[in-house]
Parts: sequence; C-alpha cells; structure tokens
Amino acid sequence: MPELRAIPVEGIGEVRPGDDIATLVLTATKRRKLEGGDVLVITHKIVSKAEGLIVPLESVRPTRNAQLWAEKFKLDPRITQTALDESHRVVKRGHGVTITETPHGFVCANSGVDASNVDGGHSVVLLPREPDRSAQNIYRALKNRLGFPVPVIISDSFGRAWREGLTEVAIGLAGMKAFRDSRGAPDPYGYKLKVTLEAVADELASMAGLACGKLTRIPACIIRGYAYQPGRGRARDLIRPADRDMFR
Amino acid sequence: MPELRAIPVEGIGEVRPGDDIATLVLTATKRRKLEGGDVLVITHKIVSKAEGLIVPLESVRPTRNAQLWAEKFKLDPRITQTALDESHRVVKRGHGVTITETPHGFVCANSGVDASNVDGGHSVVLLPREPDRSAQNIYRALKNRLGFPVPVIISDSFGRAWREGLTEVAIGLAGMKAFRDSRGAPDPYGYKLKVTLEAVADELASMAGLACGKLTRIPACIIRGYAYQPGRGRARDLIRPADRDMFR
Repeated sequence: MPELRAIPVEGIGEVRPGDDIATLVLTATKRRKLEGGDVLVITHKIVSKAEGLIVPLESVRPTRNAQLWAEKFKLDPRITQTALDESHRVVKRGHGVTITETPHGFVCANSGVDASNVDGGHSVVLLPREPDRSAQNIYRALKNRLGFPVPVIISDSFGRAWREGLTEVAIGLAGMKAFRDSRGAPDPYGYKLKVTLEAVADELASMAGLACGKLTRIPACIIRGYAYQPGRGRARDLIRPADRDMFR
Repeated sequence: MPELRAIPVEGIGEVRPGDDIATLVLTATKRRKLEGGDVLVITHKIVSKAEGLIVPLESVRPTRNAQLWAEKFKLDPRITQTALDESHRVVKRGHGVTITETPHGFVCANSGVDASNVDGGHSVVLLPREPDRSAQNIYRALKNRLGFPVPVIISDSFGRAWREGLTEVAIGLAGMKAFRDSRGAPDPYGYKLKVTLEAVADELASMAGLACGKLTRIPACIIRGYAYQPGRGRARDLIRPADRDMFR
C-alpha cells in the first residue's frame, strides 16, 4: 500500500477580486511541482475572494429580528443579517448558533458566512455561488496549462450534528468522484460488502485541513499518493437530498 | 510548513479474542518503525475483536418489532435486534436506517454494529465498551515498550446528518487533545479569531481512512508530521452534550 502525503502550497499570499486561482497555484508550485495523480485542495475563502464575494459590513442594514438575536448572544448584528440574507431557510436556532440551509443545499452555521481573517474584521466573505463550477473552472485551467488532469476540491470548515468541533468538507469538486463506492465489491473474505459509500472528497478536505489550516495562511494543499477515481464528481452529490434527510 | 504522511501498517493479519493490539502493532512495525511525533490510528474492529466483542448471529433471537422492521427493508432481523440491544435509545428510524444513540453517547447507524468482513457473515462485531480506555491501554503499552509516547486514535466509519457517505471518526483517543483550539489566538492579521475549534482527532481518523480503508485489510495507519497537542484528550469530548445538541 502506498503512503499518502499532504504537501502545503506556500506563497499564495493575499488574494484579491479578479485574481486567477489557477495562475496563483501554478506560480506557488513552481518549485514543488504538481504531478499526475495529485489532488489539489483549496480553501473556499480564496476562491470567494477571487470571485469578489466580499461584503463590507458597513453596507449591511440589520433587520429588527437580526438585531434582537445578535443582542441576545453578543453577536455582530450585521453578520447575523448577512447569514440570513445568504440562507434559503433557517433549519434550527439555539445556543447562539443559527443553522441554515443555503441555496446550494448545504446545512451549516451562518450560511457559511466567514468573518475571520478578512480585512481586519470590516468585511465578511460569502460562499462561492456555484462552487462545483468554480472547481471545474480551476480544474480546466490547470489541465490546459499542465497537460494532465489534477482534481480540484474546494473546502470549508463545517460543524456537525451530534459531534463537537469543525472539520473540513468538500463544497466544490471537479475531476474525480466524490465517493469511493465499494457497494457490492467483494471484501477480503470474498463476501459482498453491503453499503460502504465513503465520502472521500470530504476526507481529502479534512486531510488537507490538518496540513494547512486556519492559522498558517496556507490556503492550498497537494494530496499525493491517493488513488482517486477519475470522473465527473460534484460536491453537490455529497448533499443528502432533503426527502431522504431525517435531520433537515 | 511540514508535510503530513499517512503510512499504512501492513501485516497485522487476523485478530482474535485475547490478542494484544500493542504487540501486534509493534510486530507489524518492525521494519517501518514508529517514531516520536507519530500518531497511530487503529480501526475499532480489531480492538473489538481483541476484546472479544463478537456476537454469533445464531445466538440472537429477534423480537417481533425487529422482525417487522427487518422484513420491510430486507434486512437481517438478527442484526437489527443486535443494533437495538446495543442502543441506549432510537433517535430516528426511516428509509431502512436506524439511527441510535449508544450507551457511550455516539449517534450513529445501527449502534455501530458491524456486519462486514466478520466470520463470513455469521457474526457481527460490537463497539468497544469503553473505547477511550481501550485507546489508553494501547497507548500505555506502546509507551512502555517504545520509551516515547505515540497518541492512539481508535476509529470507526460513521454517517452524518445532511451529508451522504461515511467518514472515519475518532471513537477512542489517548495521548493527545481531540481538538485544536484556536479560539482567541490571533489570526495572521493580528485580530482575534473567534470560535475555531477544529476536531483534529476526527480529521486524523479520516486521513487514515484514505490510506487504509475497508478493502485493503490494513487496520492501522501511522500519521507522521502532524504537530498534535499532547494531553489527556478523550474521544468522549467529541460527543456534543445532549443539552446543547439541537439534532439529537
């Protein structure tokens, strides 16, 4: 069995609206080159920034509802308002946390609105509008210039039901399947495995999160040695359809 | 920033009740030695087998309730019964899936009862009774014999609310903290980060899951290069207390 490696991509620096992520990644990996078989994991924040999805908080006018909620839990009412503006609906509210469903279908805290490390706290960053398409665009640009495919995962830190703490998950994907589907494949005893649908795109995002992480300012990571299944996977496939979701 | 590596531990082979996991791991890592700074991730199944937590299905007498449910969804009523026997309570039932809360507090499908790859389908494996203690025992035995500490994570594949597919999570832990807590630490701009509690024990379990996995028969994995925080972490800390859980 081969080793897996997570290699931080250093030197991407501050990303601004209009920047081209593929160019930034290729410049930063000049010395540590991408290879065939690699997977590239990018935090959503630089993708959102490049796409201009930055909201100056001074432009936000909180409603009375947002103000009352924010006051109760000592939150910034403008961030609360932005989270509501970015939501399709509120799933649950309690303990100072607003769990929403985003227009993409993600269920997460505050619609994924990110207030950390942005512009000294004067702005927030939103989720990409179509993160699978963003991943596809970066994947195609890299493939054109490298001459071989490198799957792209766009990641964000989400909370979970039942368990404490955040883990990195895939919110955008291109060039590989989101799952490793071993349903029906024989196990080492020759018996058929039943349902074993492993969310490998999420696990790769988590692995990258350990190597890069919030405090390091390293927004991209190369995963080397993982035998991914090429294909037209989408992070959207990782969202459980509402009619089969018992907790939505 | 250092690279992270996931190194499969090959050659552990079939585990039987009474086997000593630390000895099996040390024997299997004779050539590829454990080093200071490593973290060892072990799938719960070999721990449960060593602890004798194997139930022959012919010994299980399903109740009428279990029989009706199993019949409706074409399941084995003896496995359904074992899952109910192993549960503290049923959280939700639907779409052929029984989500239970275990006596440990884990919320997962079928109380974590594992019917795959066991004894040709004649038996199932249960979760360890006290997985943090199991991890602690392996951690201590390794430390005694190696002369340096190697944190131990016991992992299992759990489903999630809202998202499809399984990911590996930590159900037992010893020798390191379960979270990387950067609440209040300054971000790269010098501003304080708010709540960023990263469930690194779960992310390490997921990383190991990519390198080892169900079909490879490799039940242990060395993570090298991760700057873990030493301490008395427990996987129990990863369980959200019921009174703060909006989805239990």
